[in-house]
Amino acid sequence: MHSIQQYQDFVLDFLNAQPKLREPKNLYEPIQYILGLGGKKIRPVLTLMSAEIFDADYSKALPAALAVEVFHNFSLVHDDIMDDAPLRRGNVTVHEKWNINTGILSGDAMLILAYQYFEQYEPAIFRELAKLFSKTALEVCEGQQWDVDFETRSDVTIPEYLKMIEYKTAVLVAAAMKMGAIVAETSVENGELIYDFGLNLGLAFQLQDDYLDAFGNPATFGKQIGGDIIENKKTYLYLKAIEFASAEEKAKLLQLFSVSLEENKTKIEAVKSIFNTSGASNATQQAIQDYTLKAFATLDKMNISPDKKAILKSFGENLMNRNV
Amino acid sequence: MHSIQQYQDFVLDFLNAQPKLREPKNLYEPIQYILGLGGKKIRPVLTLMSAEIFDADYSKALPAALAVEVFHNFSLVHDDIMDDAPLRRGNVTVHEKWNINTGILSGDAMLILAYQYFEQYEPAIFRELAKLFSKTALEVCEGQQWDVDFETRSDVTIPEYLKMIEYKTAVLVAAAMKMGAIVAETSVENGELIYDFGLNLGLAFQLQDDYLDAFGNPATFGKQIGGDIIENKKTYLYLKAIEFASAEEKAKLLQLFSVSLEENKTKIEAVKSIFNTSGASNATQQAIQDYTLKAFATLDKMNISPDKKAILKSFGENLMNRNV
Repeated sequence: MHSIQQYQDFVLDFLNAQPKLREPKNLYEPIQYILGLGGKKIRPVLTLMSAEIFDADYSKALPAALAVEVFHNFSLVHDDIMDDAPLRRGNVTVHEKWNINTGILSGDAMLILAYQYFEQYEPAIFRELAKLFSKTALEVCEGQQWDVDFETRSDVTIPEYLKMIEYKTAVLVAAAMKMGAIVAETSVENGELIYDFGLNLGLAFQLQDDYLDAFGNPATFGKQIGGDIIENKKTYLYLKAIEFASAEEKAKLLQLFSVSLEENKTKIEAVKSIFNTSGASNATQQAIQDYTLKAFATLDKMNISPDKKAILKSFGENLMNRNV
Repeated sequence: MHSIQQYQDFVLDFLNAQPKLREPKNLYEPIQYILGLGGKKIRPVLTLMSAEIFDADYSKALPAALAVEVFHNFSLVHDDIMDDAPLRRGNVTVHEKWNINTGILSGDAMLILAYQYFEQYEPAIFRELAKLFSKTALEVCEGQQWDVDFETRSDVTIPEYLKMIEYKTAVLVAAAMKMGAIVAETSVENGELIYDFGLNLGLAFQLQDDYLDAFGNPATFGKQIGGDIIENKKTYLYLKAIEFASAEEKAKLLQLFSVSLEENKTKIEAVKSIFNTSGASNATQQAIQDYTLKAFATLDKMNISPDKKAILKSFGENLMNRNV
């Protein structure tokens, strides 16, 4: 096994070794741009780690890992168009730097390029990877559509929200890990267990992202604190607050979430206060812990050595103890 | 073998037999909508026909044929956004009926759905189909990018234009036919020859589309006659006219193509007149015939019975004699 830092380096080296000078430039330069913006490369790292957990060399999993990373970036490029987002990883988004048409077309090409990485595997593994990939990619589209639909709905339930973040975020983390298992040709059962591990960890990760968006450390979070509150996003925190709050608090929260203000500082503080007093903050932290423990429980059933279980558990604990 | 009409019915029946009621509605309804708008289904018909040319039952090729049709419609949905097109097949485009975000996301889902149809084949055939599909899909994106790039360039050459229509249009016709060959498990050589047949027929078809856009019968062409001229599109007709025209005609053509007018009738007539007097019309008809004959020449090399060669030739002749 290797360290997270080493896996990140393996991903970056493999990415940089890909052929670059392709024509037409206006199609391929935006792809180089978004892939070169950094990011933590968590998903491809998980693919490599998973392959080694199941006794394959990480290098065998590099094409699958890159497919996951390129797909993730495809979804960012198209989502940024839909969200009209000006910035990504602290830099100008593709559709802002070029234009919307370039964002659409370069995104399309990335989705196809992701499939092409699987061609480096023999037919049976190719088919299994591509099949899991298609299922996952379609779920990510469905999750994005639910997210868009929820913006204009006032009756979103907690189970609906959880399904949305499962599809939009968690299934790709799960699939990234299962791809490592497929490449390593481990048992079907191990593949399913690592998928469940990734799914629950992905859910915990996204709920923590919701939590940190309101309560994270501004110095280290990387995004604007309170961004979700400014955009009136119906996150887990918000939905729990609506569920738990007193009639008076609920009315205040609904009122705060019905407007867009010039000055957001007062709004953010007022909303955070309701998140805390209503018990929504505690409930969110509890949910994060529940999903993390659910992920760890699948480790017990897995047919791998105790030291490898410890590595996966330690990775999960580090991810959940982040305050960035 | 069956008639074109029969193949069209097979495609429609198979399309209508696909599961429909999927959630979220806002993702899947636009897909049903665009696939239900009709169209001649030329590409999937060619896949079925090709399978039977190489002695497989057409039914074996249905999933591959539908993958080609769904991909073609994906490209229409995204291209219509990029071209800001209000109408498709006489109906409102997806992004006009819903919105741009829906057009982007439903298009993405269609690209993924296209890959999923290949899952109905065993691993070796699945891999071969998906590999050809990815290569082709990427070329279609590249062709679309060249097309976008050409809009703002004044130095587009004839070879560049031919490469653009090869990628944007002809490779998908070629791949549609080769997929029939792959499904039928014929020889590698037959697969390559039917690809070349489709490629040259696709080129002839697109050049004829350029020609008919100016000189077609308004009663039967289905699109507005002179649409390319109104949009100042640098088609084969235009590029040949620039090459052949006298200094005076060339200056007039450049002037006509540098403006957008309220009243287009005079412009269309003036441009068509230069297309004729310069010899561009004749050169275009000659090129259409050259590519058609090149397609027919590959038939001679193919290891199939004379009656099957006659069927392919007759199909090509019908396609080229259309005036709609």
